Amino acid sequence: MLQRGQAVTTTSKSISFDPGLVIENALHSALDRAMEGEDQAPPRLAAAMQHAVFPGGARVRPRLCLAVGLACGVKPAGLLTAAAVAIELLHCASLVHDDLPCFDDADTRRGQPSVHAAYGERLAVLAGDALIVHAFDVLGQVIVAAPARAALLIRTVSSAVGMPGGICAGQAWECESAVDLSAYQRAKTGALFVASAVAGAQAAGAETGPWKRFGERLGEAYQVADDLRDVASDAAELGKPVGRDVALDRPSAAREYGFGGAVRRFESLVADAMGAIPNCPGAGALRGMVQLEARRLVPQEWLKHAA
Amino acid sequence: MLQRGQAVTTTSKSISFDPGLVIENALHSALDRAMEGEDQAPPRLAAAMQHAVFPGGARVRPRLCLAVGLACGVKPAGLLTAAAVAIELLHCASLVHDDLPCFDDADTRRGQPSVHAAYGERLAVLAGDALIVHAFDVLGQVIVAAPARAALLIRTVSSAVGMPGGICAGQAWECESAVDLSAYQRAKTGALFVASAVAGAQAAGAETGPWKRFGERLGEAYQVADDLRDVASDAAELGKPVGRDVALDRPSAAREYGFGGAVRRFESLVADAMGAIPNCPGAGALRGMVQLEARRLVPQEWLKHAA
Repeated sequence: MLQRGQAVTTTSKSISFDPGLVIENALHSALDRAMEGEDQAPPRLAAAMQHAVFPGGARVRPRLCLAVGLACGVKPAGLLTAAAVAIELLHCASLVHDDLPCFDDADTRRGQPSVHAAYGERLAVLAGDALIVHAFDVLGQVIVAAPARAALLIRTVSSAVGMPGGICAGQAWECESAVDLSAYQRAKTGALFVASAVAGAQAAGAETGPWKRFGERLGEAYQVADDLRDVASDAAELGKPVGRDVALDRPSAAREYGFGGAVRRFESLVADAMGAIPNCPGAGALRGMVQLEARRLVPQEWLKHAA
Repeated sequence: MLQRGQAVTTTSKSISFDPGLVIENALHSALDRAMEGEDQAPPRLAAAMQHAVFPGGARVRPRLCLAVGLACGVKPAGLLTAAAVAIELLHCASLVHDDLPCFDDADTRRGQPSVHAAYGERLAVLAGDALIVHAFDVLGQVIVAAPARAALLIRTVSSAVGMPGGICAGQAWECESAVDLSAYQRAKTGALFVASAVAGAQAAGAETGPWKRFGERLGEAYQVADDLRDVASDAAELGKPVGRDVALDRPSAAREYGFGGAVRRFESLVADAMGAIPNCPGAGALRGMVQLEARRLVPQEWLKHAA
């Protein structure tokens, strides 16, 4: 777990910027602000919300949001950071509800007890709800500084988590008898990736078309990588029970295409994402980041299965 | 259930305005828009969301929001209607989650099956989530027209449902070992009443101080009336199982003060609310509405217990 510290170090010659630290600091500040007010916060719900957000996973979505914003030339502050924080809070909320007994019934998450395992089902429902609300509160706080961009951003984020094409919709496809794999994954995982990329561009006032495609391809790649890990990893590495897609009879690219086919699909999606990056101040740095992330998600040794 | 129709009728001499119809029409439009987009909405979640919102209860909160806005001189459109709709969607979401097996385990709501009874627990969790998200989406849509007022409004609404003093916090006090009755009720019920009144004022650009006090007193009065009905009504009249506060060992004014004492408390709170109404274009009409609402909540015959 990252500690709060100096996220941006300015010397006379250069600015050194640690996106991971910016995100952790901003998330800590946001959660602290969520407990401030005239009223005392109920302590167990406050603890459950902290538990849902810290320690985090790879913070892939807020990193993506910041990376796109920076690539488009905006600073990691104000609207951009608020967007990154809101997106991560919504992602954490979706994990809390996804782990509930009525869904995945997962006792562990990120190597620690899931929120309902630690605090009970009621506080898990409420922690998810409160995190959703707080995500929009965070966005509400930056409206006055840039109303037009904030308005676009709020709609981008709400579309990515609500109906008809966001996380809630994605999870709801699990409750339907007939499911289209690609529609299901686009809503459940893809939508928040797209929103992360598009929100980064919107915070910078950039055109969103190319970034939508970039986010779509990355989101699908991430889902394929997750399916691969579901069958490939051992529980200790992943921090949650494995093989759950098969156990729960959920759609999965690894089941549909086979392991090697899914690895090939992943590589092709990453290449598409790279190709979608438009000319912008930080295009080169962003391509480097995508390549690093691809090897983190699908290790070099898995590529031999794709041959 | 109200049908969609002409909510505002203009003749050469007068404008006739039906707040109930304005609210139902606006809620229908909002839910319809929630299903629109590039993606097909998962049909059972769409149905569960409709079931959560229609047919409604008394729509007390959006009526309050509209009434305050109108009293302050703003039209029932744009920001004011968006605020009323968002508040009602959030209220409906809280009922859906409150009815879940892990909370009240209520099989009926408003005389029909609760959402989880009709659609299962998973879709009830998701319907609540999606309604929360959509409430903020509705507010996001009116930012550009009036950014400064919208920014205040979004924070008012998020505070009323989130942490540390909103609905989520209120419900979370039920999960604590030591509960302060007034803090619990202020968060669980009072906060959204306050937000309804304050949001109405904010939509009109009016000063919020008096309306905060007005909403606080009305919210507490409503909670006392609910406690009274919990012990006084029969199941058919209320449309949900009765005596649940006692059965669930929850704090209740009727248990704390006795029936007569609770009726006296209700009357005193309503009088305080009336006294809080500031000078404004529609003060007289608003006072009349409050009096009517008070007799709807606490019927004339209950007053004899307060003697």
